[in-house]
Amino acid sequence: MQKTFLNPGQEEWKSILQRPVFDSKSLEDTVAAVLIDVKLNGDEAIKKYTQQFDHVEVDDFQVSDAEIEKASSMVSDELKSAILQAKNNIEKFHIAQVQSIEQIETTKGVLCWRKSIAIQKVGLYIPGGSAPLFSTLLMLGIPAIIAGCNEIIVCTPCDKDGNVNAVILYTAQLIGIKNIYKIGGIQAIGAMAYGTSSIQQVYKIFGPGNQYVTCAKQLVSKDGLAIDMPAGPSEVAVYADDSCHPVFVAADLLSQAEHGADSQVILVASSPAIIDDIQVEINRQLPLLLRNKIAAAALKNSRFIVMENVDNAFDLLNEYAAEHLIIASGDAIALSNKIINAGSVFLGHHSPESVGDYASGTNHTLPTNGYAKAYSGVSLDSFVKKITFQSLSEEGIQNIGNTVEIMAAAEGLDAHKNAVTVRLEDIRRSAGSE
Amino acid sequence: MQKTFLNPGQEEWKSILQRPVFDSKSLEDTVAAVLIDVKLNGDEAIKKYTQQFDHVEVDDFQVSDAEIEKASSMVSDELKSAILQAKNNIEKFHIAQVQSIEQIETTKGVLCWRKSIAIQKVGLYIPGGSAPLFSTLLMLGIPAIIAGCNEIIVCTPCDKDGNVNAVILYTAQLIGIKNIYKIGGIQAIGAMAYGTSSIQQVYKIFGPGNQYVTCAKQLVSKDGLAIDMPAGPSEVAVYADDSCHPVFVAADLLSQAEHGADSQVILVASSPAIIDDIQVEINRQLPLLLRNKIAAAALKNSRFIVMENVDNAFDLLNEYAAEHLIIASGDAIALSNKIINAGSVFLGHHSPESVGDYASGTNHTLPTNGYAKAYSGVSLDSFVKKITFQSLSEEGIQNIGNTVEIMAAAEGLDAHKNAVTVRLEDIRRSAGSE
Repeated sequence: MQKTFLNPGQEEWKSILQRPVFDSKSLEDTVAAVLIDVKLNGDEAIKKYTQQFDHVEVDDFQVSDAEIEKASSMVSDELKSAILQAKNNIEKFHIAQVQSIEQIETTKGVLCWRKSIAIQKVGLYIPGGSAPLFSTLLMLGIPAIIAGCNEIIVCTPCDKDGNVNAVILYTAQLIGIKNIYKIGGIQAIGAMAYGTSSIQQVYKIFGPGNQYVTCAKQLVSKDGLAIDMPAGPSEVAVYADDSCHPVFVAADLLSQAEHGADSQVILVASSPAIIDDIQVEINRQLPLLLRNKIAAAALKNSRFIVMENVDNAFDLLNEYAAEHLIIASGDAIALSNKIINAGSVFLGHHSPESVGDYASGTNHTLPTNGYAKAYSGVSLDSFVKKITFQSLSEEGIQNIGNTVEIMAAAEGLDAHKNAVTVRLEDIRRSAGSE
Repeated sequence: MQKTFLNPGQEEWKSILQRPVFDSKSLEDTVAAVLIDVKLNGDEAIKKYTQQFDHVEVDDFQVSDAEIEKASSMVSDELKSAILQAKNNIEKFHIAQVQSIEQIETTKGVLCWRKSIAIQKVGLYIPGGSAPLFSTLLMLGIPAIIAGCNEIIVCTPCDKDGNVNAVILYTAQLIGIKNIYKIGGIQAIGAMAYGTSSIQQVYKIFGPGNQYVTCAKQLVSKDGLAIDMPAGPSEVAVYADDSCHPVFVAADLLSQAEHGADSQVILVASSPAIIDDIQVEINRQLPLLLRNKIAAAALKNSRFIVMENVDNAFDLLNEYAAEHLIIASGDAIALSNKIINAGSVFLGHHSPESVGDYASGTNHTLPTNGYAKAYSGVSLDSFVKKITFQSLSEEGIQNIGNTVEIMAAAEGLDAHKNAVTVRLEDIRRSAGSE
């Protein structure tokens, strides 16, 4: 079904690793029109588009306490404890990212430091529809809470009866998020970007979505709003050597393929025989899956590549820069040193991508589409700004003042120079008058 | 000249703090056309636009070793030692930002960690023209070198004779950057974003520039290229209380005002008398400055605000979210705890903005235009991606596997569940057969 390549030379990599290009320009006019309408007409526009796109009339967007309470009773105890274990692991991993303040005396009397302060207002978009992604709410909400964001709002579409998925509501309440709005799609991004009478404007928007949501996030980011990262279809690359378990690798490839027909699946193996064994397993497992049609469609666009030289294999994987990279090898820890570009990496035979998607503790909001070459996944950093501070004593400005004067003069900025000169002169005068 | 406000109520803040809005849409067509031409025609297009916009013919864009050597002899020893002291301080502050790897065992057998890896290819844009910003090359080049970026290229315009400013070349050579290209403006951003036969494509572009450069960075970022941050005119806010030195504060306001007629200057004082004293000093210092016409124009758009209540003062300053914030108070350290939004903060009477612009050690590439509400300035973080890793033992997957299965099933993703199930079954089988 998918294409297989044998030790392709570097000149072929670009075409082999080509991702599907989606031209969002065709959507831009529609999306921009909705955003402008929301900016100008607020709640009225949101009601209109919720009716038009989601076919439901909503009068009060905000989810009520009664709805949240009711939702909790609809979630099984089994699922509740699973969510709790995931929450604990995600918390542990993200709390470890809290940075303490370290003061650096760069020159005697010149103290400099950075302080992390939460972005005060953040908006989390959680897609609804066929797959209610409560796991994404954990991944975005937990670091937002740890960072100390003052106002955290969640937008998520409701169903035809005006209800938000119960597990999403339960999860929000569990992690301590109260402001949840029944708004989806472009209009949700517009509401959070510009604010309305009932929805607070935020400074940064997080979360996945369909092409319309992605395009809307792109457009509001041009207006100066921060977004988590640019988005594209989800993807996995697997490196498998002789030590791999074909059953496991096949299951990992299929778990990515079930996301959507546009999901990317790349397998790099150290010999042709491994690919044959994995193919047999894919053929066996695929028909047993609920979403086998989606997975089959995704597999058609996948690439299986034999790379007998391990360094070439990792050069190719670094060139691809996968969102998820699985190293299906007994030697995974050593091999991990060869990784330069990836979103999140899964090492060894017992680390499927699924564990990172839900419960290992790492964040599952990751750079797709090769963005891992320059972007990191969501972390605590994504919810804070790091403000720099400097405090100079008289000794400090005396020690570096002349340097600043000389450099400012060389850049032709003499008012910059003068701001130092007036201070140095004042210090000299005070010393003279003592 | 500028407007003064007395204890304005919160409902007035938005209009008082309004920044000049620049509509880049009018430039977009021009900029997009140049970018597409560079993408399609590479070096030929760059030559064409260098001739058209910069009125100089350049055959070989790359600065030669001979040019770099010659430049070094043209820089005074005094300036060389100033640059060296600045370099040392900037290095100290940014080396302290190197993060070691910390492994977190989120659940027994589940090891997770983050590893910072340099963005392999980065491009630094350094404006030329009237003010050759060698200080910006220090601020961008030093963290790029510390991060370990493999390929660092610098684009900067040359003069009518085809020469790049000597101090810029000296600085590049001092910090260890070899690939410098005589390209400016939109075509420089296009060259770094798409690559040409003579210029390497990069993954992230840094650096300030005029409105055309800013617009070009915005447009290539829509193509998936990472950029340091959105840009706007430079700005300072000063908080001054009774303890301030009006001479110093006036000099600080003027040092910001000399940047350009569109620079923003905000003064928040704890009494009307302070503003009067500072105004007297501005009137005295302004005529003495080389760039007094520019500074006078900028001051016309400035705002002087009396805020007798200190908490209100800082609420207003946090609402403004200044790129540079100076606390001209003997109590600056205590007051600094009230700061939530700012790019870089200058505490006390001997910490003018100039020291951070050049030599204290903090980075001077900072969020303007209120972006400090959601963005940090450039730091070592800007030059790395933080990749997450996870490695689970058999015990690890046994401890969290069931949680993953339950959550994946609840999200309707049974191939995700199956990737865990095949492993748990295998472990059970192995245990049974022992």
